Amino acid sequence: MLINCAAYRSGVKVEDFSPYDEATLGRHLSDPDTFVWIALRDTTAEELQPFQRLFHLHELAVEDATHGHQRPKVEEYGDLVFAVMHLVDWVDADLSIGEVAVFCGPNFVISVRSGSRLHFLGVRERCEREPHLLMQGPSFVLYALMDAVVDRYFPIVDQLESELEEIEQSIFTPGAQLDNIKRLYELKRRLMRLRRAVAPMLEMLSKLHGGRVPLLCSRTTEYFRDVADHLARIHAAIESVRDTLATAIQANLSMVAIDDSAVTKRLAAWAGIFAVATAFAGIWGMNFEQMPELKWAWGYPAALGLIVSVCGLLWWRFRRAGWL
Amino acid sequence: MLINCAAYRSGVKVEDFSPYDEATLGRHLSDPDTFVWIALRDTTAEELQPFQRLFHLHELAVEDATHGHQRPKVEEYGDLVFAVMHLVDWVDADLSIGEVAVFCGPNFVISVRSGSRLHFLGVRERCEREPHLLMQGPSFVLYALMDAVVDRYFPIVDQLESELEEIEQSIFTPGAQLDNIKRLYELKRRLMRLRRAVAPMLEMLSKLHGGRVPLLCSRTTEYFRDVADHLARIHAAIESVRDTLATAIQANLSMVAIDDSAVTKRLAAWAGIFAVATAFAGIWGMNFEQMPELKWAWGYPAALGLIVSVCGLLWWRFRRAGWL
Amino acid sequence: MLINCAAYRSGVKVEDFSPYDEATLGRHLSDPDTFVWIALRDTTAEELQPFQRLFHLHELAVEDATHGHQRPKVEEYGDLVFAVMHLVDWVDADLSIGEVAVFCGPNFVISVRSGSRLHFLGVRERCEREPHLLMQGPSFVLYALMDAVVDRYFPIVDQLESELEEIEQSIFTPGAQLDNIKRLYELKRRLMRLRRAVAPMLEMLSKLHGGRVPLLCSRTTEYFRDVADHLARIHAAIESVRDTLATAIQANLSMVAIDDSAVTKRLAAWAGIFAVATAFAGIWGMNFEQMPELKWAWGYPAALGLIVSVCGLLWWRFRRAGWL
Amino acid sequence: MLINCAAYRSGVKVEDFSPYDEATLGRHLSDPDTFVWIALRDTTAEELQPFQRLFHLHELAVEDATHGHQRPKVEEYGDLVFAVMHLVDWVDADLSIGEVAVFCGPNFVISVRSGSRLHFLGVRERCEREPHLLMQGPSFVLYALMDAVVDRYFPIVDQLESELEEIEQSIFTPGAQLDNIKRLYELKRRLMRLRRAVAPMLEMLSKLHGGRVPLLCSRTTEYFRDVADHLARIHAAIESVRDTLATAIQANLSMVAIDDSAVTKRLAAWAGIFAVATAFAGIWGMNFEQMPELKWAWGYPAALGLIVSVCGLLWWRFRRAGWL
Amino acid sequence: MLINCAAYRSGVKVEDFSPYDEATLGRHLSDPDTFVWIALRDTTAEELQPFQRLFHLHELAVEDATHGHQRPKVEEYGDLVFAVMHLVDWVDADLSIGEVAVFCGPNFVISVRSGSRLHFLGVRERCEREPHLLMQGPSFVLYALMDAVVDRYFPIVDQLESELEEIEQSIFTPGAQLDNIKRLYELKRRLMRLRRAVAPMLEMLSKLHGGRVPLLCSRTTEYFRDVADHLARIHAAIESVRDTLATAIQANLSMVAIDDSAVTKRLAAWAGIFAVATAFAGIWGMNFEQMPELKWAWGYPAALGLIVSVCGLLWWRFRRAGWL
Repeated sequence: MLINCAAYRSGVKVEDFSPYDEATLGRHLSDPDTFVWIALRDTTAEELQPFQRLFHLHELAVEDATHGHQRPKVEEYGDLVFAVMHLVDWVDADLSIGEVAVFCGPNFVISVRSGSRLHFLGVRERCEREPHLLMQGPSFVLYALMDAVVDRYFPIVDQLESELEEIEQSIFTPGAQLDNIKRLYELKRRLMRLRRAVAPMLEMLSKLHGGRVPLLCSRTTEYFRDVADHLARIHAAIESVRDTLATAIQANLSMVAIDDSAVTKRLAAWAGIFAVATAFAGIWGMNFEQMPELKWAWGYPAALGLIVSVCGLLWWRFRRAGWL
Repeated sequence: MLINCAAYRSGVKVEDFSPYDEATLGRHLSDPDTFVWIALRDTTAEELQPFQRLFHLHELAVEDATHGHQRPKVEEYGDLVFAVMHLVDWVDADLSIGEVAVFCGPNFVISVRSGSRLHFLGVRERCEREPHLLMQGPSFVLYALMDAVVDRYFPIVDQLESELEEIEQSIFTPGAQLDNIKRLYELKRRLMRLRRAVAPMLEMLSKLHGGRVPLLCSRTTEYFRDVADHLARIHAAIESVRDTLATAIQANLSMVAIDDSAVTKRLAAWAGIFAVATAFAGIWGMNFEQMPELKWAWGYPAALGLIVSVCGLLWWRFRRAGWL
Repeated sequence: MLINCAAYRSGVKVEDFSPYDEATLGRHLSDPDTFVWIALRDTTAEELQPFQRLFHLHELAVEDATHGHQRPKVEEYGDLVFAVMHLVDWVDADLSIGEVAVFCGPNFVISVRSGSRLHFLGVRERCEREPHLLMQGPSFVLYALMDAVVDRYFPIVDQLESELEEIEQSIFTPGAQLDNIKRLYELKRRLMRLRRAVAPMLEMLSKLHGGRVPLLCSRTTEYFRDVADHLARIHAAIESVRDTLATAIQANLSMVAIDDSAVTKRLAAWAGIFAVATAFAGIWGMNFEQMPELKWAWGYPAALGLIVSVCGLLWWRFRRAGWL
Repeated sequence: MLINCAAYRSGVKVEDFSPYDEATLGRHLSDPDTFVWIALRDTTAEELQPFQRLFHLHELAVEDATHGHQRPKVEEYGDLVFAVMHLVDWVDADLSIGEVAVFCGPNFVISVRSGSRLHFLGVRERCEREPHLLMQGPSFVLYALMDAVVDRYFPIVDQLESELEEIEQSIFTPGAQLDNIKRLYELKRRLMRLRRAVAPMLEMLSKLHGGRVPLLCSRTTEYFRDVADHLARIHAAIESVRDTLATAIQANLSMVAIDDSAVTKRLAAWAGIFAVATAFAGIWGMNFEQMPELKWAWGYPAALGLIVSVCGLLWWRFRRAGWL
Repeated sequence: MLINCAAYRSGVKVEDFSPYDEATLGRHLSDPDTFVWIALRDTTAEELQPFQRLFHLHELAVEDATHGHQRPKVEEYGDLVFAVMHLVDWVDADLSIGEVAVFCGPNFVISVRSGSRLHFLGVRERCEREPHLLMQGPSFVLYALMDAVVDRYFPIVDQLESELEEIEQSIFTPGAQLDNIKRLYELKRRLMRLRRAVAPMLEMLSKLHGGRVPLLCSRTTEYFRDVADHLARIHAAIESVRDTLATAIQANLSMVAIDDSAVTKRLAAWAGIFAVATAFAGIWGMNFEQMPELKWAWGYPAALGLIVSVCGLLWWRFRRAGWL
């Protein structure tokens, strides 16, 4: 589905037009100072076909853009650059992954978004407000789109970090272990999902700055380096959360064991105290005929006193040992 | 055993013929625009011998193709390319590994499949329907075979992912831990088996695109890059499942410990309650002569009431502490 | 906010002046043997604007310097070098991270510090005391600042190491496990925070010595190598603490389990001893008419003796088995 | 100690002779189409000295060959190649490590075996049966020796894999955990021993194929690549066993915990049942005068019935909860 | 502090002399076939100053040599090579780390040892006994020192390996777990300390053989490769111990759990047996009037017999189940 399409000369918008109007499109493409920027979403192969023929898009790239479920990548097909990025968004308290594919040639840029509600209208507006930057051509648009995609990762990684911090608050709280392990596990899953968007994109971005850069992007390498740097920060944050998560899971297991051990101690202590009481009572409950103390007037209170004293002594000792 | 054999000129099938008919074969090979595509399965060294002589196949490659149990690889022998890939298939609810070896020269391609029911008839059909692609020659056939092999990994990795999700459903279910650890272990084993097919193939594919590419494959690097990209996706999915599996195993252990701890608490609580009852009963079961309460008319109901009250109080406190 | 600003000719300070006085600044910049060193802190984009125009600072670099929350990096923009480093400091017994950004050109160096109380006055003083070194120009100032930043990591890593050693003292102390796991977890978090400052900086420093070095820094590579070496030492120490921490967490879990096991044994032992006493007492508390021993004159003492003997025997055996 | 020695011209054996007979040796060495193959075992520095002088063997290589306890390696000394490989063998149900060192020059190959019963007589025989291969010279002999060494790793890794499978059979068997952890630990130790032979050899083999290859081996790189490929397969199998072992050890720990938890539950259940019985019996064992039920004719059977009913009810509930 | 100093011409000692005698030193340095070898220990900056001036030692290198606490490294300063190595020694049953710094120029070598009792007198003696090797100049001395340092790592790693083997003897011994975890932890700490000496040195040695080698060392690369090889062996041994240690710690935790589980079972068993006895005794201790069996002449022995029989049956069943 077409979102919008416009032609830009020297960074300034010339006109909005329908890219399916081949005459207008042809006129713009024949002007060497002009490039067209076409934004599509949830596109079928049929919708892309006219562009494929006109811009010589490689069939494999078109397949990738329409089929979806690609991993983030940057590929060169001749003098064209084809990029796929993941759009990560919160949907119903879980991370949902969409995609945006960008075809970028000397005088055109086509973006195809799919499976996500995130849009790039703001990117176009901002670009149009800065003609001195936009006049660098399609590769600047590619940068602007990448930058927008990466900027949307920041709040997500922040959210994951603050979730971790929240769990950390209760990690040493007795009795919260079951809840904690569930939340840690869920957090790990989300983190891995985000990581699968970030890690290959970081790898791919290294093709656009430093080393051998596609000719198309040679004037904007500093911008791509900046995106790569932001992404590296996100990646470092993810790795850090991941590492801390692993430690938190171990700490949680330790806490379960410590908690269990405390209960075992308490159980041992009370069981001991009552076992003593029961044993003493059992002794004086025996039916021997010759048990002189049973006949003493103060036998019963003395027995009770003895039992209470022994139990009290045990209680005090267990208390001191930290078992109670 | 021969499956089929045909000669192709400019991407169009010329004729099916027996590769053991040397006259016909020689005629096709002498035509520079023609290549032959021979498909074999479960081949002995004897069956390969005529081709080895005719196409100058290296003895080490022939050995690998007939002996089986190779790891996935791509090797150059002079201007020939020799590739081995793993075919992964579900047999009796377990992963079974077969192999396909492909000899690829300037005017021939020989595929030798072994130890698997998966076949490539569909690949030949699809190639024949697209002569403009098939005219790129034997390296396109090599690509088509690789693509078919890799495409068959997708449902398997999807299956493993959904198995993991299924286990995740019950990972925090009390009492399911024994079952879960068994299933996690089994899943891990399958995953490792798939990984042994995927990881070396990913590595080997890097020889066919980017960097120094065999001359034979120089016109189809973009296709091999696409296969590599699919494989990288599968590999990332495997690594992700693997990482999540490790966390799941830890979470499972935590759950066992949490479950055990809950039982210990309950045990402690009930043991405490009954120990109190027994101790009180033991006290009044003593045989002292001077125990005035034993003579009171309402002594027995009062004692029972006291015991029940104390036990009830304990029960309430344990309940509140979450032990019961 | 401006901290200070001075011009240096051949390593000797010429004068302190306000960098916003464009005439003086222009005069110094026009002298090829002179460079200016401007120190700022917590700067807004507006404060940097005059310098951005005058020194042709790249907008992305200026953005990074004012926005903060960058990861440590070294970037070349044309013949300028832009570096960001993390300042790590103890604030309220926790690690606080600030930043310092340095713009370094052929005849100027601008440092922008933010979010930290750590300052670099000492660096300027020391540089001014060694004109023969300072005459190497702005890249020596860059080195001096880096060296100061890295030198401040040493006491922090030492502190973390000694915290670990302190925990190690009590790691095998029974009953200290809960405290230990908390401290180990806290230490791990601090360590990861320091690591996020050190690891990318180590990586970035490799751009300033060995391999292709920015022209600006070509005369001071040996100094940058020295900083890199210090940093590598810190990094190795961090990795070592990290590795030991992981082992300590495992050892702590083992200790909890060992402690729990000891308690279980003790519980088993005492429970066994009293269960025996209670069982014996219960036997002689039965109301059978024909129990001859109940009538024996020395029946009671004998029974008591038997109970004590059996219990004592059990006690002795449990003692010998190490359960008590 | 000398095993055997022969000269080969164009791949065909010329004669067996004593390498200490310098005249014969000299005659063979002066013929450019001839090379000599000397096999030694458990050699002292003295025995090697004549060859060291004659073939210009480097003193460090000679030291390595006689001292033993080297790690697998391939080193170039001028135009000579020196290789050390580990011989792994089962001795008394444990893995024993021996070594073979090979000096390889343009017209000679000397193999020195030490600390192992494994011999290479079969290698020489097989080489002599294939003169068209052996005529490739000393580097083919080096290949043949390496191939023989690596071929002997296969049954060992197979054995370790089947040991793992055997343990896996009983990993979820209750009560086998102690035995399993012992066997897993033992298996891990053996695996690490094999790995120390395989991993450095894999690394070293990359020097003999692909990249810069010693001149001596340039005609046989395809053979060395084949050995490397076999070794990579062994290495992958080792890593796979290693990874599965780690999971098995975790699964074993989970099983211990699950087993323990089951016992705790059963203990809790039976303790609860008998505590109830004892408490009830204790109640009616009290000596209050006014306990009307004691006087009822059917009091005793009713009490017994009540006790049995309550215990039965508990038993049934515990049964249903899976505790018994 | 000066240890000794001598001049060598063509590998033969010319004379011992004081390096502070500048006339003699100057005479030797002016002879192109002569080099001087100065050995110092625990040196202050002042002691090094004359050499710093004379041999143009870089201030950063001098700082490193006098300050200590460097990580192992090899650095080039112009045509000089500066190396720092760790000396590892047993002091009071713990590993103590000292350092040796070596300045190596075309006609001099200065070694500065600090913080260790290990000395290099034997190295000088051995070198002087082999003039044909020593005539290779200062880089051979550097090699000889490195070789001596590395040779001293071997007994340490052997000691750590045999400590591990000793612990392994008792790893499955019931009751030794507390001791084992302590020893494993201690071993891990020592291992990490050794590793911090070995790992960076291995990395640094790669600069002295293979790839771009400092001119000074170009004639002795084969010797440095040999040292690197020894070090790689030590490193592999360390990694192997480390890996086994991790498994041993896990196995130890399993053993604690297994041990605990065994105790729990035994506790459960005995508690069950005595609970049955107590319950039966409690039944017959009830005070119902109509309990016919109490009046039977053989009631008591029958009751005793029943109790013993039931307990015996339980004992036998628990025994068979492996709980006792």
